[in-house]
Amino acid sequence: MSAPKILVLFYTTYGTNHAIAEAAADAAREAGAEVKVVRARETAPQEAIDGQEPWKAQIEKMAHIPEATADDMVWADGYFVSVPTRYGVPASQMRAFIDTLGPIWQEGKLANKTFTATTSAQNVHGGQETTIHSLYTTAMHWGTIIVAPGYADPVKFEDGGNPYGYSAQAGSFDEKGKESVAYQAKRLVEFTKKLTA
Amino acid sequence: MSAPKILVLFYTTYGTNHAIAEAAADAAREAGAEVKVVRARETAPQEAIDGQEPWKAQIEKMAHIPEATADDMVWADGYFVSVPTRYGVPASQMRAFIDTLGPIWQEGKLANKTFTATTSAQNVHGGQETTIHSLYTTAMHWGTIIVAPGYADPVKFEDGGNPYGYSAQAGSFDEKGKESVAYQAKRLVEFTKKLTA
Amino acid sequence: MSAPKILVLFYTTYGTNHAIAEAAADAAREAGAEVKVVRARETAPQEAIDGQEPWKAQIEKMAHIPEATADDMVWADGYFVSVPTRYGVPASQMRAFIDTLGPIWQEGKLANKTFTATTSAQNVHGGQETTIHSLYTTAMHWGTIIVAPGYADPVKFEDGGNPYGYSAQAGSFDEKGKESVAYQAKRLVEFTKKLTA
Amino acid sequence: MSAPKILVLFYTTYGTNHAIAEAAADAAREAGAEVKVVRARETAPQEAIDGQEPWKAQIEKMAHIPEATADDMVWADGYFVSVPTRYGVPASQMRAFIDTLGPIWQEGKLANKTFTATTSAQNVHGGQETTIHSLYTTAMHWGTIIVAPGYADPVKFEDGGNPYGYSAQAGSFDEKGKESVAYQAKRLVEFTKKLTA
Repeated sequence: MSAPKILVLFYTTYGTNHAIAEAAADAAREAGAEVKVVRARETAPQEAIDGQEPWKAQIEKMAHIPEATADDMVWADGYFVSVPTRYGVPASQMRAFIDTLGPIWQEGKLANKTFTATTSAQNVHGGQETTIHSLYTTAMHWGTIIVAPGYADPVKFEDGGNPYGYSAQAGSFDEKGKESVAYQAKRLVEFTKKLTA
Repeated sequence: MSAPKILVLFYTTYGTNHAIAEAAADAAREAGAEVKVVRARETAPQEAIDGQEPWKAQIEKMAHIPEATADDMVWADGYFVSVPTRYGVPASQMRAFIDTLGPIWQEGKLANKTFTATTSAQNVHGGQETTIHSLYTTAMHWGTIIVAPGYADPVKFEDGGNPYGYSAQAGSFDEKGKESVAYQAKRLVEFTKKLTA
Repeated sequence: MSAPKILVLFYTTYGTNHAIAEAAADAAREAGAEVKVVRARETAPQEAIDGQEPWKAQIEKMAHIPEATADDMVWADGYFVSVPTRYGVPASQMRAFIDTLGPIWQEGKLANKTFTATTSAQNVHGGQETTIHSLYTTAMHWGTIIVAPGYADPVKFEDGGNPYGYSAQAGSFDEKGKESVAYQAKRLVEFTKKLTA
Repeated sequence: MSAPKILVLFYTTYGTNHAIAEAAADAAREAGAEVKVVRARETAPQEAIDGQEPWKAQIEKMAHIPEATADDMVWADGYFVSVPTRYGVPASQMRAFIDTLGPIWQEGKLANKTFTATTSAQNVHGGQETTIHSLYTTAMHWGTIIVAPGYADPVKFEDGGNPYGYSAQAGSFDEKGKESVAYQAKRLVEFTKKLTA
């Protein structure tokens, strides 16, 4: 069997979800997957970005990471998605990308793949649960198979315990968080291997 | 008491949610509200729009309707929001607008207003319920008061019965739908009058 | 490879979800699964039941179907759950059963299995979407793999199009519904086979 | 103007949600409401309770608190609900009570009242957000007006920041929590006063 293809798709403003994405990519590779890391295109006006140094710096930091395309979505056997919360739902930049996928969705090219999600928010309970559910709702429309971590590993009782997917407070993605993301990514690879065999 | 100010905020691609918005505005005015109708700015690339005649025609049809601003949000006492479903959540154009509201949200200028929502989808059960809940989740972050219709009026047993807010199949906004939207808009006005008195 | 074990778990008051469960069981067997059909224990007071002839008749009609136990949950490789909506969530009888599963959940005996759900409601949009999501939320806590139908088959554009799982109006489970439930059950079996291979 | 009538409705196993309910009741009284505290009837089998001393002790501790009835629901102008999480949704005991409200719901006697909710869970992110949303979903079916706290007060940036309603980790309802619950209860009273004026 060939290695399962995992697309790590993220959007970030200040870097937390970029760090989660890299941790997920490392773990997925270690678990035997072929991994591609892509980011949702920034859609905010340039003047908004220019007004915030940390945002601008983060965009420069990830200039080498390709912007996600519909072809990336077709290529993958499984998706690991990470996106910050905005008022209880994913940042609109991720939604703008997702809304371009109509044609491949209609051709059934998103179906029967695996899907897992992580997020970050400003507050401890700032919509982390609802944001991940929002992504899973969409993933169900695509006909993907949802691989949430639940409490299927002891790390989930130590990482804040979000059973839908790992969630960080913005700027606080720590070692325990990395361990949790690694678990979630390896779990995705494991089930992707079985489901796409 | 002065008339409550209702902002009817919509996004539409082919016109269903525009029609809902106009029906809501008419009913709200009739119920004694001062009403402003605004639309979320189109964010799709021009070439995507140009490739679809009905989309292009709809944009021309509503060229006179102003694009929503943060000031509109501050102005209003209550919000009537209508937006089509995309994979179980609101279209990203609406989310792009909402994501610009950070500054006024932080100043508390969205709090303690009223909020109600409607939607449309391609299928009978195409995420109408989840789309409206997604908007209410965001509205709760703002500290608004949610005024869903429930089954508080007989029309709700005749209009498809979505208790979270009226929902149409795309292109099928009919007389019963208008009656239901009118009920929902008047209900919003009534509670806005009381809550903002 | 041995046949995957599918537990069809339902609760019903007047019979719609019983009919869905039987249709799912037939389809799962046809797809090569070993199937067990069980029902959540009735918890309503006897006088409430006695006051409604159709409810009482339904209970007599399914007296031969065993009540669900924790052992059934451990036994299964995958779950097909059907339960009516009550105010946008599953009927409390199903929740009462689920709340007894703490011990096996803590031992990890619910994890890594497959899960899919269907429902019914009085109105067209009476909480069908939210009810199924409520079940999936719980299933994620267990660490199960969610196999929603999405629009991965043409029948989903003909059966009302609920991408989270088939949903019927109470008393209106028709031929198209049976086809949709059969698809959803076979899909569950197919992915359960892969996971247990 | 007469005092608004607030029903504080809770279920608890080990006492966290009882403590939240008492704190809410105190604050609501202080804000000028007439308050009644009631609990959802225990539905677990006696042998389950007898096997757990802390559960048994809690039931004895609140023997003087009346069990909630449909009449209580009719009596109230607003509801403050507190219930622990079970797998991302409210404990089934609360659902069992809610499922008895069909007759008064059909008569419209739950409509147009106010509603707010709080919860507790074992983990930091153990379904606190989804549990409260589940209650609001139901409250929307009733046609009630949802008064979530959002971030409409500074305490919400200090109490864990759940904008949908205060949430505690089980057994950790502390002073900051009391402050947050008091805010949420007073907010409910304030808006209920306006609606019943």
